[in-house]
Amino acid sequence: MLLAQRQSKRLTITQIAKEAGVSTTTVSKVLNQLPGVGEQTRARIQAMIEQHDYVQNHAARHLRKGQSGLIDLVIMRLEGGYDIGIMKGVQEVLEESGHRLVISTTNEDEDIERRWLRRIQDQATDGVLLLLPYERIGIADTLMAHNIPVIAIGDRNEPTTAYPTIGSTIWLGGYTATEYLISLGHRRIGIITGPLHLTTSRARLAGYREALERANIPVDPTLICEGNYLLGDGVQQTFALLKHPDPPTAIFAGNDAQAAGVYQALYQHNIRIPDLMSVIGFDDVTYAAQMSPPLTTIHQPLVEMGKMAANLLLRLIAGQTLESNHVELSTSLVLRTSCAPPRQESLPI
Amino acid sequence: MLLAQRQSKRLTITQIAKEAGVSTTTVSKVLNQLPGVGEQTRARIQAMIEQHDYVQNHAARHLRKGQSGLIDLVIMRLEGGYDIGIMKGVQEVLEESGHRLVISTTNEDEDIERRWLRRIQDQATDGVLLLLPYERIGIADTLMAHNIPVIAIGDRNEPTTAYPTIGSTIWLGGYTATEYLISLGHRRIGIITGPLHLTTSRARLAGYREALERANIPVDPTLICEGNYLLGDGVQQTFALLKHPDPPTAIFAGNDAQAAGVYQALYQHNIRIPDLMSVIGFDDVTYAAQMSPPLTTIHQPLVEMGKMAANLLLRLIAGQTLESNHVELSTSLVLRTSCAPPRQESLPI
Repeated sequence: MLLAQRQSKRLTITQIAKEAGVSTTTVSKVLNQLPGVGEQTRARIQAMIEQHDYVQNHAARHLRKGQSGLIDLVIMRLEGGYDIGIMKGVQEVLEESGHRLVISTTNEDEDIERRWLRRIQDQATDGVLLLLPYERIGIADTLMAHNIPVIAIGDRNEPTTAYPTIGSTIWLGGYTATEYLISLGHRRIGIITGPLHLTTSRARLAGYREALERANIPVDPTLICEGNYLLGDGVQQTFALLKHPDPPTAIFAGNDAQAAGVYQALYQHNIRIPDLMSVIGFDDVTYAAQMSPPLTTIHQPLVEMGKMAANLLLRLIAGQTLESNHVELSTSLVLRTSCAPPRQESLPI
Repeated sequence: MLLAQRQSKRLTITQIAKEAGVSTTTVSKVLNQLPGVGEQTRARIQAMIEQHDYVQNHAARHLRKGQSGLIDLVIMRLEGGYDIGIMKGVQEVLEESGHRLVISTTNEDEDIERRWLRRIQDQATDGVLLLLPYERIGIADTLMAHNIPVIAIGDRNEPTTAYPTIGSTIWLGGYTATEYLISLGHRRIGIITGPLHLTTSRARLAGYREALERANIPVDPTLICEGNYLLGDGVQQTFALLKHPDPPTAIFAGNDAQAAGVYQALYQHNIRIPDLMSVIGFDDVTYAAQMSPPLTTIHQPLVEMGKMAANLLLRLIAGQTLESNHVELSTSLVLRTSCAPPRQESLPI
């Protein structure tokens, strides 16, 4: 791994101390320009540090360049799902570049957003990553108006945006999920979408339709339910699907939170997954693997999206021009144990 | 709520613009000392802002006091469980105080920890919150040696520490969980502890013993299993408990991740919760309510612990003396649907 290779070229304090024949405290004093080290020793350690390209004072480096060394990540709400993967990826890149990651949450509160915008204009930031719903993305325009580099993470709702965006291949994910269920033998597949005014929700649904059409399975509109990406929507829409005169044998949930809701509704009716109902999710958040049974889902490369966003932001900060204003990373199918061939018996309801 | 009250005293840009009869852009220009506003208008808006005690330039405020306005939170690993609650609480307090939250993750990598320690000594920070396992807590000593205010979150392993720590009433939580199962009629209660070299794991077990002894139920050592707080431990130890000649009717998992493992093991054996087995967790992380069935668990007040830690750190930074070097907030029982009276039939295995 490149990261590990680059790290290994740097010497640790312990290694420098050993090579110089002094204590780590002495090396630390030199690094931090503290008193208590003889001039000769100091010069010798300093030379050794420079010789080994010991990158230590990132803050000073950034300040020399007129930069703060701070990158802001603004999240609507800390939920422990989608947000964690993105944060991990961003953190990994910034740990390597020596930037510090500042986290803010807005909780969809306009006052907090406004105050945050005010502060970010006053305060030092090298650039901003936004993880916000589309309704709030006006923030990006304000940042751009103040010449603050900005990149939005999460698929865009409009085909073009003034600021760069990082997303994943959502339509293909919807297609892959549905095609997989069809390959297991399913013909009646329910879908619980996200809000259908969002392009990303429509993309999942369009992928679902595409897979059905390719397999010559007619689209049954009574199997299409709209949710709001919340667990409760998964519960309610599953109850509705179970009341259908000809209920589906598989359910495709628009995100993993809704899939958790599908699980709860099925558990209440004692309908075993995958024996009596297959369930597939979308996102592959941390808890997907912790569900019972572990959830088969469409993996959004959240960590990689965070890394890509951070890397592109660093390039913007360095004054480079990006190849494209929108980048999509590939979704993929993660096979766990929540899908199986369709049931041969009727549902126990 | 105090937060809301304090916020409402400040004027928004819109309110100032309205009162001054100018556009919000004009107000923004004055706030950010940008050109394009006539001197008279600028003076009028400036006076209005000062009159209303419009707190905007936190960065400048902090710099005047020789502070950076930055608080660091160091997390071992971003997991989307315990960490999210703590982060939320810290964020809420810092949003109000006007500090910015810098997040670092160490991933238990000693090189990353060492580099982080080096940077934090070079770079501006007003104080540090640590969310790390005990083995790594030596970091706190280094920070203290550099006069950087530090508070550790999570229950301490040693009865005394040189730095302040924030925890919760773990022993009482273990007692409450077990007492609740006893109140439902359970007599054979399995427990999957954390690593028993940790005081906090032993505290849960001691609480379990205490509840059994108070109810005159003999402690059966064959029902006590040791885990490592990971999902896989929950799975494996549940399989072991199910092979017991006289298996328990309820399982107390040392944390919610292990409880998710208990769920998976029971699901594989088609043992319904709570009908055939009651399960109780510990922590009350975000996904506890998303499990099927929703997990009854011991709530650690994670958000409040984060808030308390941030508030105490701000007091340390202000040079105040804390009342105590260790503060515990109360755990509590959260009733969901994973516990019921003991089964009357035998297990289907």
